[in-house]
Amino acid sequence: MKVGLIGYGYWGPNLLRNLHETNGVEVKRCVDLSPERRTAASKRYPSVEVSGDADEILSDPQIDAVVLATPVFTHHALAKRALQAGKHVFVEKPMTRTVEEAEELIGLAERKGLTLMVDHTFIYTGAVRRMKEIIEAGDLGELYYFDSVRVNLGPWRHDIDVIWDLAAHDLSILTYLVPDKPQSVSAEGSDHIEPGLVDVAYLTLHFANNFIANFHVNWLSPVKVRQNLIGGSRRMVVYDDMELTEKVRVYDRGIQVKSQEGIYKALVDYRMGDVWSPKIDMREALSLECEHFVDCIRNSKVPRSDGVAGLAVVRILEAASISLANNGARVVLSRGLQSDASSARS
Amino acid sequence: MKVGLIGYGYWGPNLLRNLHETNGVEVKRCVDLSPERRTAASKRYPSVEVSGDADEILSDPQIDAVVLATPVFTHHALAKRALQAGKHVFVEKPMTRTVEEAEELIGLAERKGLTLMVDHTFIYTGAVRRMKEIIEAGDLGELYYFDSVRVNLGPWRHDIDVIWDLAAHDLSILTYLVPDKPQSVSAEGSDHIEPGLVDVAYLTLHFANNFIANFHVNWLSPVKVRQNLIGGSRRMVVYDDMELTEKVRVYDRGIQVKSQEGIYKALVDYRMGDVWSPKIDMREALSLECEHFVDCIRNSKVPRSDGVAGLAVVRILEAASISLANNGARVVLSRGLQSDASSARS
Amino acid sequence: MKVGLIGYGYWGPNLLRNLHETNGVEVKRCVDLSPERRTAASKRYPSVEVSGDADEILSDPQIDAVVLATPVFTHHALAKRALQAGKHVFVEKPMTRTVEEAEELIGLAERKGLTLMVDHTFIYTGAVRRMKEIIEAGDLGELYYFDSVRVNLGPWRHDIDVIWDLAAHDLSILTYLVPDKPQSVSAEGSDHIEPGLVDVAYLTLHFANNFIANFHVNWLSPVKVRQNLIGGSRRMVVYDDMELTEKVRVYDRGIQVKSQEGIYKALVDYRMGDVWSPKIDMREALSLECEHFVDCIRNSKVPRSDGVAGLAVVRILEAASISLANNGARVVLSRGLQSDASSARS
Amino acid sequence: MKVGLIGYGYWGPNLLRNLHETNGVEVKRCVDLSPERRTAASKRYPSVEVSGDADEILSDPQIDAVVLATPVFTHHALAKRALQAGKHVFVEKPMTRTVEEAEELIGLAERKGLTLMVDHTFIYTGAVRRMKEIIEAGDLGELYYFDSVRVNLGPWRHDIDVIWDLAAHDLSILTYLVPDKPQSVSAEGSDHIEPGLVDVAYLTLHFANNFIANFHVNWLSPVKVRQNLIGGSRRMVVYDDMELTEKVRVYDRGIQVKSQEGIYKALVDYRMGDVWSPKIDMREALSLECEHFVDCIRNSKVPRSDGVAGLAVVRILEAASISLANNGARVVLSRGLQSDASSARS
Repeated sequence: MKVGLIGYGYWGPNLLRNLHETNGVEVKRCVDLSPERRTAASKRYPSVEVSGDADEILSDPQIDAVVLATPVFTHHALAKRALQAGKHVFVEKPMTRTVEEAEELIGLAERKGLTLMVDHTFIYTGAVRRMKEIIEAGDLGELYYFDSVRVNLGPWRHDIDVIWDLAAHDLSILTYLVPDKPQSVSAEGSDHIEPGLVDVAYLTLHFANNFIANFHVNWLSPVKVRQNLIGGSRRMVVYDDMELTEKVRVYDRGIQVKSQEGIYKALVDYRMGDVWSPKIDMREALSLECEHFVDCIRNSKVPRSDGVAGLAVVRILEAASISLANNGARVVLSRGLQSDASSARS
Repeated sequence: MKVGLIGYGYWGPNLLRNLHETNGVEVKRCVDLSPERRTAASKRYPSVEVSGDADEILSDPQIDAVVLATPVFTHHALAKRALQAGKHVFVEKPMTRTVEEAEELIGLAERKGLTLMVDHTFIYTGAVRRMKEIIEAGDLGELYYFDSVRVNLGPWRHDIDVIWDLAAHDLSILTYLVPDKPQSVSAEGSDHIEPGLVDVAYLTLHFANNFIANFHVNWLSPVKVRQNLIGGSRRMVVYDDMELTEKVRVYDRGIQVKSQEGIYKALVDYRMGDVWSPKIDMREALSLECEHFVDCIRNSKVPRSDGVAGLAVVRILEAASISLANNGARVVLSRGLQSDASSARS
Repeated sequence: MKVGLIGYGYWGPNLLRNLHETNGVEVKRCVDLSPERRTAASKRYPSVEVSGDADEILSDPQIDAVVLATPVFTHHALAKRALQAGKHVFVEKPMTRTVEEAEELIGLAERKGLTLMVDHTFIYTGAVRRMKEIIEAGDLGELYYFDSVRVNLGPWRHDIDVIWDLAAHDLSILTYLVPDKPQSVSAEGSDHIEPGLVDVAYLTLHFANNFIANFHVNWLSPVKVRQNLIGGSRRMVVYDDMELTEKVRVYDRGIQVKSQEGIYKALVDYRMGDVWSPKIDMREALSLECEHFVDCIRNSKVPRSDGVAGLAVVRILEAASISLANNGARVVLSRGLQSDASSARS
Repeated sequence: MKVGLIGYGYWGPNLLRNLHETNGVEVKRCVDLSPERRTAASKRYPSVEVSGDADEILSDPQIDAVVLATPVFTHHALAKRALQAGKHVFVEKPMTRTVEEAEELIGLAERKGLTLMVDHTFIYTGAVRRMKEIIEAGDLGELYYFDSVRVNLGPWRHDIDVIWDLAAHDLSILTYLVPDKPQSVSAEGSDHIEPGLVDVAYLTLHFANNFIANFHVNWLSPVKVRQNLIGGSRRMVVYDDMELTEKVRVYDRGIQVKSQEGIYKALVDYRMGDVWSPKIDMREALSLECEHFVDCIRNSKVPRSDGVAGLAVVRILEAASISLANNGARVVLSRGLQSDASSARS
């Protein structure tokens, strides 16, 4: 299978390295606007042709699949042209700038019978896959909350704000792990460096039941934190991506009101049990994801992070932007394609 | 100086121990409704009389000052009676259930010439005092954000929700450290154990400038986290109260846009400098606070955590409860006593 | 039961507090040479008589048991007099300065039918008791090594060196957890502050099989570390006493040579399984130990940390001092009382 | 400059990647006995010729320099042939199996005027270079001790034991940082997996003054630790290589006896000051090292990790093996080439 990579900036080198090592894949051409970046790609992988013109990939009949690692505002146009040219597409997150764009790509891929996959890298990590198993097995009981912190000093982006950049990761994790669908979104944030570009933000998702999800994203943090807490009635999970090996910890801890007769008589039962850190598959997520992309194309499978999964994240991001522009007012999430398709997927 | 302690539950033993060790203080009597608690107090401090009736303290002419460690809804009534009886008052946080109650106590103490102090323990810690010096010296530059996480598995309270319980601490730190006054509050939360009693919550404070403050409080976390991030244009601080010694770290890190000509041309400058952890006074905060209470009474000083400081926190908590009841809508903070008095204090 | 406490310096206050709270114990008198210390004890526990003369305890017929928290060189003489006066003895670690002294006390207590117990606090912690269960259940397989680090900046002692001070703790843990007896000891160390008083030291214990134990003790470390690694053929344990809750972690990890045909053909099998942190009893060890002391006296039980256990540690310390004085030469550990009695105990 | 790489096993890929990216270097050929490894090298770097025969590098007149990443017992023979063929040599640590072999290579390189450099990677890290500056500036005062822990679960080696494998790193750090020369070595260890191959070991270096250095190396640890403590009279350093950014911490802490009149009157002064974590150059050490190798060849400079530095480490390792075979007896380190040359180097 011959692949073309468009974009060799921040994430492109990781894609090129992994695509290059994927069995059955030949990266035929890599496109970037910057001559320096092209030279860097060429030096590392002399067998890959480089070019400054995306058309050389989009119009190349030998190329079966296109991988897009360009700024978000270009995703829709480039993916659309690739699909129209009959090529499978693997696009960086967030999938598009709007719900409408995402829906158009999904429809187009469907009509053409092509694979459309979004790079939600984290759901391919051993840690998130293990948490998925734990949640599906019911080990956590009823889910109470999902709390996420993803903060760092940069890397700065100019094309999208910190919510679209960082929360996209945690939203992909949430929507993968938690079966319930959020009903509304509220977002608060502030800009300090580039006027209009929010660099510190807080996002809350509301659900039909008491489950609540919150996301803290920040480009101005002195320390790097990537942590999810997932609380349940039976057990709780801490996923700390900065840990080298024990990334997932399952706490056999909980709290219940045993009986209550007035505020002085209420009896609360704390359960403080063992902590268990399951062994995690440490293979590089992006490598597994590239293999999955190839497998989906070859065997007509629906990717775990298909266009519909990408749309679910974009739908929340779009609503978050509206909330942010309206002083944090709750924005109801429309249904539609998302709920239909996601049930089909599972 | 003779002191009476009302309430020997969760925090009372710490108060009794520290009051007992404070020079010039004699704890004459300790009151608690529970006979078991009274026996415990008596066993540890045989010289302290115990009783089940608060009146034995409030009506004892020998007692100069009353310390209140009772449920929040009793604070106003007990403090009012103590002040009316001419006694100085040291009351647990949060000071009262309403702004109105707090304002009444402040006025009463003022008219009577008595000391009214709130137990904002954290602002007496070496860590918070050191951060106050750092901020006042301008070391952080313009302040960008204040992010706070205070989560744990309980201890559960039935009389107030997790915001009134835990955020009260961080709000006392914020209002002590940051000179700007918040303009509005929004709060989101969820209840999972006792219907109507929020146990996971997120609070956002909005300011006139771009400064933003956020608080995550949670009684259902498997792990204990007590962390503040304070971002500034010149430096940033991490205050981790779970660290044994290096509780405060000052990061000489920052980010600036050097020049910008379109999104591809923007140059961002990351400054990654040294990290510095100043030596912290490790004396027990509550001990210093007890000494401060005595000193304020004897020398007619305004306590660092006076009624006005207590009111500032209650004002935010009251607004947070309103926001919570209104789906997280922003609630504007009224001014008044707070801004006037706080300038007088400094 | 009436108890007398001799020594109210560094550890004495912890003993007094716990003895005071132990059911069935009345601390009648506390002796210390320093008037300031006596005042401190008296202020906190007005019911306890204070004195500067140990004889007032040793000759008091009402006192049933004596607790010794004095410098090590006084342990033998004071314990001997107490035993001769028919009193049970609870003595700080290390038990005595020499094997001979320890053996004399053991014999005396035996002849008098009195309880002689050494304060090996750590073996009463939930963490060490849990590790004992894990090892006894065979969960670790064959034991490979015991590695211990106990370093800190002080607290400085002038009466004994860092080995006698700090390694005494870890030797009490090792001899409690590991059934095999060490055959020889070697010690290396260096003095930097007080000439002749070693403040950084390394101790190695050699066993009949391949098991090896090593101890790093240091009064000049900028950071506080208290960690044991225990390696076994099936699983491994990390005991980190600086962790707040997850003090013990059991790693289902190991390594084996599956087959070997020359150095290029050897196949090593790494087993990387789950990590499990068992729930630990968090009650204060010293409190349990005081209860155990009372229970042993009342019910004529052999204390878990009896004189023989104290002797086992002193025997190693004495040999370590000899090795230290001989450039780290291995010193063979004589047998005798230790092995006989310890088999009797179990 | 044309380079040949012999050995593409564990470390070889890192060398090839960095050599490939070094300006002015062309990796002409890569040799490995394993066809699979050759295919792997070839796939990643199609421009590099591969071969199973080292002679194709050693006898190639176009090749200027040879990089050796083969088992230690082959280092001497391969390096000798390369030097005899007029090629510069960059050899993995430890440099050789014996002092004699190392001395022969040093002499040969000197006579031929060729660069002989050993891959002591750690001394090229930003962390170690920064510590070198701190020590040279006298910030630590008089040096007291160097304590090192380097433990992990494997990776297992069959050609050398854990001391030659892991302690080689820390010895290269010690001999780089500390100007004093060790006088003798003692080593203790134990084998658990492969008979005769020590997998847990402790090494002590003795110096003319009170300075002491100790090394714990272990292939059977469930956790990965890479930590150095360096104690001085004025300040102390913790170098934790597992930290992502704050790898070096300087503690302004210390202890002194102010006055002493008998053991009860001695006054010890603890200094507990700030902690400072200097910014560290985070560039990859091996990349800087490859550039340094080229620079030394081009400009006839003496490498920071020249043959003499390699010899200093081998001399200690050789003595450690003798000590290990003699129950931990101290082995005096002969002088000679090491001291002469090292003074010439600085």
